[in-house]
Amino acid sequence: MHAQDVPVPPLPEAEISRLREIFGRDLILNDIKRLTPYGRDQVAGTALHTTPTAVVLPTTPEQVSQLMQWANRSGIPVTPRGGGSGLAGAAIPAPGGIVCSFERMNRILEIDPINMMAVVEPGVITSALDTALAPEGLFFAGYPMSEDICFIGGNVAENAGGGRAVKYGTTGTWVTGAHVVTPTGDILRLGGKRIKDVTGYDLLHLMIGSEGTLGLFTQITIRVIPRPAVRGVLLLAFPGSEEAAGAVAALKRSPALSAIEYIDGETARMASAALPKKRRITIPEEAGAFLLVEFDGAGKTDVERELTGAAELAAQRGAAPPVAGGTDPAEMDRAWALRKAVPWWVKRTAPGYHSVEDVVVPPGEVPTLVAHAEYLRREFGVPVAVFGHAGDGNFHINPMKPPAMSPDEWWPLIDRLQRDLYQRVIELGGTISGEHGIGRKRARYLSLALSPAELAAMRAVKNALDPGNVLNPGVIFER
Amino acid sequence: MHAQDVPVPPLPEAEISRLREIFGRDLILNDIKRLTPYGRDQVAGTALHTTPTAVVLPTTPEQVSQLMQWANRSGIPVTPRGGGSGLAGAAIPAPGGIVCSFERMNRILEIDPINMMAVVEPGVITSALDTALAPEGLFFAGYPMSEDICFIGGNVAENAGGGRAVKYGTTGTWVTGAHVVTPTGDILRLGGKRIKDVTGYDLLHLMIGSEGTLGLFTQITIRVIPRPAVRGVLLLAFPGSEEAAGAVAALKRSPALSAIEYIDGETARMASAALPKKRRITIPEEAGAFLLVEFDGAGKTDVERELTGAAELAAQRGAAPPVAGGTDPAEMDRAWALRKAVPWWVKRTAPGYHSVEDVVVPPGEVPTLVAHAEYLRREFGVPVAVFGHAGDGNFHINPMKPPAMSPDEWWPLIDRLQRDLYQRVIELGGTISGEHGIGRKRARYLSLALSPAELAAMRAVKNALDPGNVLNPGVIFER
Repeated sequence: MHAQDVPVPPLPEAEISRLREIFGRDLILNDIKRLTPYGRDQVAGTALHTTPTAVVLPTTPEQVSQLMQWANRSGIPVTPRGGGSGLAGAAIPAPGGIVCSFERMNRILEIDPINMMAVVEPGVITSALDTALAPEGLFFAGYPMSEDICFIGGNVAENAGGGRAVKYGTTGTWVTGAHVVTPTGDILRLGGKRIKDVTGYDLLHLMIGSEGTLGLFTQITIRVIPRPAVRGVLLLAFPGSEEAAGAVAALKRSPALSAIEYIDGETARMASAALPKKRRITIPEEAGAFLLVEFDGAGKTDVERELTGAAELAAQRGAAPPVAGGTDPAEMDRAWALRKAVPWWVKRTAPGYHSVEDVVVPPGEVPTLVAHAEYLRREFGVPVAVFGHAGDGNFHINPMKPPAMSPDEWWPLIDRLQRDLYQRVIELGGTISGEHGIGRKRARYLSLALSPAELAAMRAVKNALDPGNVLNPGVIFER
Repeated sequence: MHAQDVPVPPLPEAEISRLREIFGRDLILNDIKRLTPYGRDQVAGTALHTTPTAVVLPTTPEQVSQLMQWANRSGIPVTPRGGGSGLAGAAIPAPGGIVCSFERMNRILEIDPINMMAVVEPGVITSALDTALAPEGLFFAGYPMSEDICFIGGNVAENAGGGRAVKYGTTGTWVTGAHVVTPTGDILRLGGKRIKDVTGYDLLHLMIGSEGTLGLFTQITIRVIPRPAVRGVLLLAFPGSEEAAGAVAALKRSPALSAIEYIDGETARMASAALPKKRRITIPEEAGAFLLVEFDGAGKTDVERELTGAAELAAQRGAAPPVAGGTDPAEMDRAWALRKAVPWWVKRTAPGYHSVEDVVVPPGEVPTLVAHAEYLRREFGVPVAVFGHAGDGNFHINPMKPPAMSPDEWWPLIDRLQRDLYQRVIELGGTISGEHGIGRKRARYLSLALSPAELAAMRAVKNALDPGNVLNPGVIFER
């Protein structure tokens, strides 16, 4: 059954009046065309889609605080929303619920080069922060790959990863402070422009990655670092997935390594062919798998030495001479363009009928995981695109519906495939999501990854901070 | 009143029998000489000291689980204990309580060079892990300065910092997994050998730094990284504190910087004089403040270029040519020996009557903080040794009782001095503890740093996980 089929009672008139008092005209109601986009994110398929009964567009933390007081009185659930680029349905509202979209809280409040900190509202687009930092020679190391569309608030709520997490960690690594509205409407000012803080519990990092179920971020303080002076990239073609995956551990031994991305051969060929002609890379027919490696550092000599070392190491494992790369910015962009094209290619190839999986295993288990993806292809008889952050052991394994298969056959197959994949990564010491989150998409599978005691402890924390269960219910936990 | 003056009822006979069933002979009872050391840590003064009614020495997580079930039935509080090197009284038991010492759970369970992970029991001494990692070319970047005496379990419980946190972060940065016994006796297996994990709430990092009030660590998985090939150190003498503190922000611009430690001139001279003759450094009489800077990297040329750059930058701010340093290991040890001598010198200079403060400010406020330490000296008329992790804005400000002052005068003075200092750092956007924790020592000051809403949220989390308030009560929160 689709969430949108659940009959939803309209908001009572008295509750609407109160929302109008708080938000004035920054309230969307009864306008199905405007409401609809707030009922979905980047998850494929309509199973999770719904339509919010209202959308509010706060511009101040006080409005958000009043909203949560309203929610606790009325019992109507609230779902916070960033750029809508999520891949697990965490920004999709509960049936009958309303959406709190942070799109109007989008100011960069401060770039502070002395403290090497930036203070932003949650609705800032991630790449806009990078643009503002560049003239100061600074950068935000924790950004995800969707940096041109995602909001920083969403990155923080999901603890998003990204292409350079192998060196720089995920979003949460760089957040030193935040203003957070609790589910009951208190405004907490957690952390600040300080690098260390052990004053009481680390509520900040409890909130980060809680997928909008424990608090709403209204201001975020981000630690930034000197922009690396030099970068270098290589795109390496290996005979097969085994050779590529097997090279990861050795390549990771360099502390200068800032990215190591895997793409399976077939997917790379298809994604490259879908690129505009001038950005296309000639992909050797015989290549079974690719690694994109990036190094950064203070000096060009050092980075070039790393590139040479990586190419030699790859050659020892049967790789062809590098397909693309170097330290030239255009050439680096060309190599990254291929990697960035992959998720878009998956989306276009099986629109509405694919699943972006986000499993993670100990880095040493990458070869086993890649082999398991090939098993999934055979066992389930569907195409499976494999790419991801090999240095983190975090892989996006993307089953896609063949055109001839019916949707009724597809959805149960995906459920079985997910269970098979999740079971395997858990056996390998991994878990079911590395950077996209549990959201609504994986809530039903959470008990595969966590013990009853672990789930009970998480629910106890949720209940302690959100006794009315009005903040994003149905996300992470089924209800 | 001293905690030890509170009349404490002895353990009921039935409760002792049950402890004997769980721990057999690994139970210390009625032996005041053996019990006494478990009632103190490295906090100066006897005000917080007490004597536990019993000490248990678990060797398995199951025993720890049974212990917490016992505590919930009996209502008798339990305090976990690592190496006893804490500086805030977090390992000091509640009156009438018992201590759970992890000294017998001290095995390094695994060094895993493929995954670049180590798995340890909580009682492993931190430097022992480093010794075990060195042959693999790996190191644990999150260690504190007390690495030769502290237990990893304690480091994790306190989220301890250290001399290289400016580059590598604190202990918690490197912990990817842990087995934790909850206050009610459940065994949680959080995280694992994986670099990314957004599967449910980040209970792992909620536990880290919770000072033994939310859980007891029985196994810890630590991410390790390639050992930097080259290090280089400089000890720089500046005319005054202003010049030294003012140089910090500029020196921090190098991504190779791995440490930047501050020592005030008088303290450096006294600490050096207290060193064995052959380790002593000749300290220029006119130097008002010192910075010890360290860089690390892959190549000797790069590190030497950084040292030259740092010396030039310091000279522009009036520094003398470097007092000690270079890339020679013996010379680097000599420079670090001075920094490491300082806390010991403070301890010996005013035994029982000093306070190791641990305030933290935004890095850009370091000059203001250092100036405030000078104000404290004048205002309160006591010597104040100032040293700390300047790159993190984390300073140890150490007031010491002059020999002529009576203890009765000293303790109220310290309370006033702490309030003055804490108020100032909070005004500067800082907080009252950066790496030592709140413990028992600062519980009464917590409400200076946190709002009622922030305290209520922390207490709600504590109450959700420890409804009987039997795990380390009196630490962080007054009761």
